[in-house]
Amino acid sequence: MVAELISVGTELLLGNIVNTNAAYLSKKLAALGINVYYQTTVGDNEGRLAEALQAARERSDLVILTGGLGPTKDDLTKEVTAAAVGRMLVLDEAVKEDITSYFKQKGKNSGDIPQNNWKQAMIIEGATVLRNENGTAPGLIVTEEDTTLILLPGPPNELVPMTETQVIPYLSSLSNTVFYSAMVKLCGIGESQVEMEIADLIEKQTNPTIAPYAKTGEVHLRVTASASTQKEAKELVKPVVKELKKRFGQAIYTTKEEETLEDVVVKALLKRELTLVTAESCTAGLLTGRIVNVPGVSEVLKEGFVTYTNKAKRKLLGVSKSTLKTYTAVSAQTAKEMVKGAAIGSDSDVAISITGLAGPGGGTEEIPVGTVFIGCYANEKVTVKEFHFNGSREKIRELSVVNGLDLLRRCIMNHY
Amino acid sequence: MVAELISVGTELLLGNIVNTNAAYLSKKLAALGINVYYQTTVGDNEGRLAEALQAARERSDLVILTGGLGPTKDDLTKEVTAAAVGRMLVLDEAVKEDITSYFKQKGKNSGDIPQNNWKQAMIIEGATVLRNENGTAPGLIVTEEDTTLILLPGPPNELVPMTETQVIPYLSSLSNTVFYSAMVKLCGIGESQVEMEIADLIEKQTNPTIAPYAKTGEVHLRVTASASTQKEAKELVKPVVKELKKRFGQAIYTTKEEETLEDVVVKALLKRELTLVTAESCTAGLLTGRIVNVPGVSEVLKEGFVTYTNKAKRKLLGVSKSTLKTYTAVSAQTAKEMVKGAAIGSDSDVAISITGLAGPGGGTEEIPVGTVFIGCYANEKVTVKEFHFNGSREKIRELSVVNGLDLLRRCIMNHY
Repeated sequence: MVAELISVGTELLLGNIVNTNAAYLSKKLAALGINVYYQTTVGDNEGRLAEALQAARERSDLVILTGGLGPTKDDLTKEVTAAAVGRMLVLDEAVKEDITSYFKQKGKNSGDIPQNNWKQAMIIEGATVLRNENGTAPGLIVTEEDTTLILLPGPPNELVPMTETQVIPYLSSLSNTVFYSAMVKLCGIGESQVEMEIADLIEKQTNPTIAPYAKTGEVHLRVTASASTQKEAKELVKPVVKELKKRFGQAIYTTKEEETLEDVVVKALLKRELTLVTAESCTAGLLTGRIVNVPGVSEVLKEGFVTYTNKAKRKLLGVSKSTLKTYTAVSAQTAKEMVKGAAIGSDSDVAISITGLAGPGGGTEEIPVGTVFIGCYANEKVTVKEFHFNGSREKIRELSVVNGLDLLRRCIMNHY
Repeated sequence: MVAELISVGTELLLGNIVNTNAAYLSKKLAALGINVYYQTTVGDNEGRLAEALQAARERSDLVILTGGLGPTKDDLTKEVTAAAVGRMLVLDEAVKEDITSYFKQKGKNSGDIPQNNWKQAMIIEGATVLRNENGTAPGLIVTEEDTTLILLPGPPNELVPMTETQVIPYLSSLSNTVFYSAMVKLCGIGESQVEMEIADLIEKQTNPTIAPYAKTGEVHLRVTASASTQKEAKELVKPVVKELKKRFGQAIYTTKEEETLEDVVVKALLKRELTLVTAESCTAGLLTGRIVNVPGVSEVLKEGFVTYTNKAKRKLLGVSKSTLKTYTAVSAQTAKEMVKGAAIGSDSDVAISITGLAGPGGGTEEIPVGTVFIGCYANEKVTVKEFHFNGSREKIRELSVVNGLDLLRRCIMNHY
C-alpha cells in the first residue's frame, strides 16, 4: 500500500511550527508496512489544497490529511475534500453531542458555545467518524473505490491519541498482514559501532528487518516482522532480539517501546529500595530534572545539589580545597569527592556527580572543551568515568546527562 | 516571488527525523518577503524526485532542494536536477580543493579520501557554487530563465550556516526591496490577551506587519517592514516597536532576536553584581539547568537545591514541619520558606523557589494538578505567585520554569 501525507496550514509554510505530525505519522505507517512516498505541505488555500489532493488521489492508495479542521473560515480541509470526492457535508448528531459535552466539561452551557464550532459537527456524507477526546474536530475516514482518505486534526495532542486508538487499528484491519515490532534501546555505545556489530544481520535481513535510529547518546534498533498472525510475527522477532541481547549485553537498557533511560534508572532504584542523591556542575540540574520526569520518583530521590562554582562544591559537597587546586574542578578526583560528599552528606545509597567543561570558552590543551567526568557511588563503591564529547555547549550538556543516567544504571545493576 | 521547498530523503519519509530544515528555510524566506506555497518531501528515488521537481519548476519562481547531495549512490539530487535543466555535471577544481582541505583538517591525506567523495566535486554546468565550511557537499545555485533552483546539503549544521552567509545575501540581492525586522518577546501574558491588545494594530497593518508566535509560556511578536533601503525599513519598524513597548511595558523582556529569557535574567544579575540561589521542587533542576545555558553564569549562580521531598525541603532549606503539615508542600507558605531558606542559608542576594503539583496523579479539589507556587527573594523582599497550568506533567514543569525565570526578571528589575 502506498500512502502520502498532506499537511494543511499556513503556519507550517511560514515556518512558525515544525511539522512533527508528518514524522510521527510516517513512523507509524512504516511500522505497519505502509510506504509513504510523498509528504506535502500546503497553506489554508482552497485551490492549492485541491490541487495537492487531486495529485495524491491519483498516485496513492491512502492519503492522510492533517490540519484545517478547526472552526474558522480559514479551515478548509473538510470542504475541499468533500468537493473532490463529490459528496455533501451533513450534520452528524453524535459529533454535535460530543462537542456539547466537550464544552460542558469546560464548564460551558450549549448556549455559550461559539457558533463557529457547530461547523465542526458537519461531516462528509458516508464518512466514518473518528471521535476526538481532546478537542472539538472529529477525524474522518472517507473510502473511495481506489483510495482511502483520512482527515485528522492538526494539534498533536488531538492527532496522536486519535491515531493510536482509532487510525492504527483501522489500518491494521485493512491488511491480511500483521506487523509486530520490538524496540531494543542501547546506551553507552556509539552508532557506528552498533552498525558495525550488526552489519551481518542487516546485510541478510528480510523478515524481520532491523532499523537503527540514533538519538542523543543512544541508539535504538527497531526489529519488525510481518506475518499472517500477531503470534507468528512475534515468534519471528524473538530470536533476533535474543541475538541482539547476546551481542550487546548490558548496553541494552530496555526492549520496551515506551520505556526511557530515566524510567529504567528509577525502576532499578525502586526495586532495590535504594535512595539517590545528585551533584551536578556543568549539567546544573538537567540530570535531576530528567529523573523527575518519572512520576513517583519521590520514593527514591532524596535531594539534589547544583554546585556550579568551586565554592559550592566545597561547601555543599565537601570537596577539598587542595583537590580543586591540584586537579581543578574538571577532574576525576573532583568527581569522586563530589559523589562521595553527596552520598555521605545526604545519607543516600546511590549518588551521581557530573563535572565538566561544556564551553564554548575555557578550554586548554590539558582540559579541552567537552571533557566531562562522571562519578557514581553505589554500595560504597565509587566509579568515575572520563568522557570527551563533541558539539555545542547544549549538546555536551545533553550527552553528559544521558551518559550520567547510563552510568547510574550500570552501577546499580552491577553493585547490588 | 513564489517559492517552494523540496526535501529529499527516505529518512524523512520513514519518520526517522523531523523536517526542521523546512521550518527553518520557510521562516527565513518569510522574513525576506518570499511566499512559500508548497513544501514537498520525497525519498531518494529518481522518478519521484524528477516528478516533484518538474511540478515545482512549473509553478514556482524559486525552488530550494535540500538533501541528497551526499557521496553515496543513493544521493541523487544533483543528478536529477542536472537532467531536468538539460545540463552536464562537470568537475569543479575549487570544490575539489575544498574537499581536500576539509579532509586535511581532519588529519587525512588526499590518498585517504574515500573515492565516493570526489562525486561531490562535480557541479551542474554554469551553476554558482555555495562553499560548505562544515562538510564536503557544496550548495549550488542554478538559474534558468523563469526559475532559480538552489540545492543545499541536508544536515542542518551545514545547511544553516550556508543559508545565513550565502543564500540569504543572494536572495536579498535579487530584489530591490529590503526587509528589516525586530523581534519583541513577551512573558507573563497569554497569547490571546496579546492578540486582543494589538487587534487594532494587526487590523490596519500593511507595512510594517506584526506576526505573533506562541512559545511555551512566551509570546513573540515579529515586526517586519520593507523599503528600498535598510535605513528606511528600520525607520518604519521603530515607531511600531515603541508602541508595543508602551502597551506591554514590563511584559516585554527583550527586543533582541537572539536573546533568551535566561540571558536577560543572568544579564540583569551581572549588571547589578547580584548572586543567585535556586530551590526547586517539581521542576527539580530544570530552571537551574536553563540558567546555566548562559555562558559565564558562574559569576552569579552560587548554588542550587533540588528538594523534591518534604524531608529535603526541611533539611536543606529549613522549611518548618508545621508549615508542611498545615499548608502542605504545594502552598504559598512553603514557597516563601523555601526561598527565604535558600537565600539566607547560601548568603545570596536573590533566590527563586518553585513548588507545585505536576501530576499526573496526586490532585485534590483544593490543590488540583497544575497548581504551582513560585517564590522570589530580592533585596530582602519576598514575592510569591500562584499559577494554575494546564497540560501534561512535562508541560506543567516547562511552564513553571518559564514563569519562574520571568518572576526573577521582574523582581530584579523592580527591587534593585
